[in-house]
Amino acid sequence: MMHFVDRVLEEIRRKGAPVCVGIDPVYDRLPEAVKSQPYDEDDAAACVDAIFQWTMGLLEAVAEHVPLVKFQSACFERYGWDGVEAYYSLIREAKEMGLVVIGDAKRGDIGTSAEHYAAGCLLDLPGAEDEQVAGPDSITVISYFGLDGLKPFTEAGAASGRGVFALVRTSNPGGDAIQSLKLTDGRSVAEAVAEMVAKIGGDAKYVGKSGYSLLGAVVGATKPEDARRLRTLMPQQMFLVPGYGAQGGSADDVRACFKDDGTGAIITASRSVIFAHEKNTSDDWETAVEKAAVQLRREIREILGASGN
Amino acid sequence: MMHFVDRVLEEIRRKGAPVCVGIDPVYDRLPEAVKSQPYDEDDAAACVDAIFQWTMGLLEAVAEHVPLVKFQSACFERYGWDGVEAYYSLIREAKEMGLVVIGDAKRGDIGTSAEHYAAGCLLDLPGAEDEQVAGPDSITVISYFGLDGLKPFTEAGAASGRGVFALVRTSNPGGDAIQSLKLTDGRSVAEAVAEMVAKIGGDAKYVGKSGYSLLGAVVGATKPEDARRLRTLMPQQMFLVPGYGAQGGSADDVRACFKDDGTGAIITASRSVIFAHEKNTSDDWETAVEKAAVQLRREIREILGASGN
Repeated sequence: MMHFVDRVLEEIRRKGAPVCVGIDPVYDRLPEAVKSQPYDEDDAAACVDAIFQWTMGLLEAVAEHVPLVKFQSACFERYGWDGVEAYYSLIREAKEMGLVVIGDAKRGDIGTSAEHYAAGCLLDLPGAEDEQVAGPDSITVISYFGLDGLKPFTEAGAASGRGVFALVRTSNPGGDAIQSLKLTDGRSVAEAVAEMVAKIGGDAKYVGKSGYSLLGAVVGATKPEDARRLRTLMPQQMFLVPGYGAQGGSADDVRACFKDDGTGAIITASRSVIFAHEKNTSDDWETAVEKAAVQLRREIREILGASGN
Repeated sequence: MMHFVDRVLEEIRRKGAPVCVGIDPVYDRLPEAVKSQPYDEDDAAACVDAIFQWTMGLLEAVAEHVPLVKFQSACFERYGWDGVEAYYSLIREAKEMGLVVIGDAKRGDIGTSAEHYAAGCLLDLPGAEDEQVAGPDSITVISYFGLDGLKPFTEAGAASGRGVFALVRTSNPGGDAIQSLKLTDGRSVAEAVAEMVAKIGGDAKYVGKSGYSLLGAVVGATKPEDARRLRTLMPQQMFLVPGYGAQGGSADDVRACFKDDGTGAIITASRSVIFAHEKNTSDDWETAVEKAAVQLRREIREILGASGN
């Protein structure tokens, strides 16, 4: 059983850049070609069908070019259990295409409830052998509960070769209200969370051949100085960096999340890739998405100083 | 449309105590009578069937005695979309029995994703009129994202007469690692979160006739001095207090969560009520649960100095 990060690094090498496409389906923004049937927005089943077909096309357009995809659970959950079924089915499809899958579910609780979330949102779901449902290769989780909130997830990850990304720093403006507060010891709240994550994730049983832990960190790409500080505090954490492209992360912001050797972060772009048809109206939507994924890979390679496309 | 807290207070008066039964089904701990068929633990559908039947019996046993129930989403999600369907079906049943329902989903994200969670986890799900799926009357949410993480939920609550409980202080030992850290201004992190919640929830459009906001707070019943401080910092917040009974919250811990007028908190007990059959083996399990719910109500009334049963 391969360690999660070792596998991620291998896939990054194979595809050529540490990039991830975020799959955040918003029905209103789907291409007209997908919505062309007379769908009723209040008809959840029809919305889920359209989202399923669109995501399949999206996965086929990007699978060759990027190592990872991240599914935004909220966009599926809004349609109830039909949406949740689509979420798991699409995760299976993505895994079969060789993509490493992150379930962006931001789950968290304590004790038994955290164990249930780990079992339900990270691992394969129970079922007869031929009915087993594949869980994602990793998920995002909440850090506010501390060790006993994180451990059920990291233990499940260690037992199954999967990964966990703990929320450390978010990229939204409101995040500062709590995350930037200064502690008496000079650290910010986010830095205290970072040190806790580094300590929990540093347990030898969680660390792969690469030196990275299966417990990574979500670090919003907003301020380069913040990212550099967090990079130092979490040397064994792979960063999952949302906010590139549509949310305004720049080249400097991105570079600060990596180590000097060019490893240590996965850069995620969502809207700029998945809704590329909104700006590129000369191609069909699948081609627009594929070109945007190739461009994302090129941009990140350039930022990292790698040559070629 | 009645304000969420006004309705909660009315139901508390009607049932006689501010108590809530937490529904955290753990298959292994269900009464043998429910598991008596030769269920296979790896057969998710059979587990979900057993949990559904058990929860129905539980709701019938407690509905007459308590104003609120809280569904632990994790325990249903672990069985994938079948579990999610059962969760929503049981919420509908509970509402039809006149119970106020809290969905303990601890959701949170930013921007569009938070809006999707609010739509999917708090509101009624889309569907043709006769297929509409009832969402819970309120949910628990994460505070770490700040204002733009909370607002999509409070706005949805204001538009639909529902409530939101933001995580402020958790009752687990590990929670201290972040929540008790001291800021340079003398506050703890949890107190800073409390003040943010008080400010966001204090918007006049969120406040009901009772003076309470639809944005409440989850406050673990661990230390009375912490609870008293948080009570002062959040005068308009209804506290949702887990951890009574099995998790070890005492009478003093509980009393500290209330105002002098005996309002301001909802005390939740889960395992001590729902698994009452483990200790009370002389009654059938439904009677054991009913007696435990009546005892919970009596204990909280005694703590609050109310007379009678």
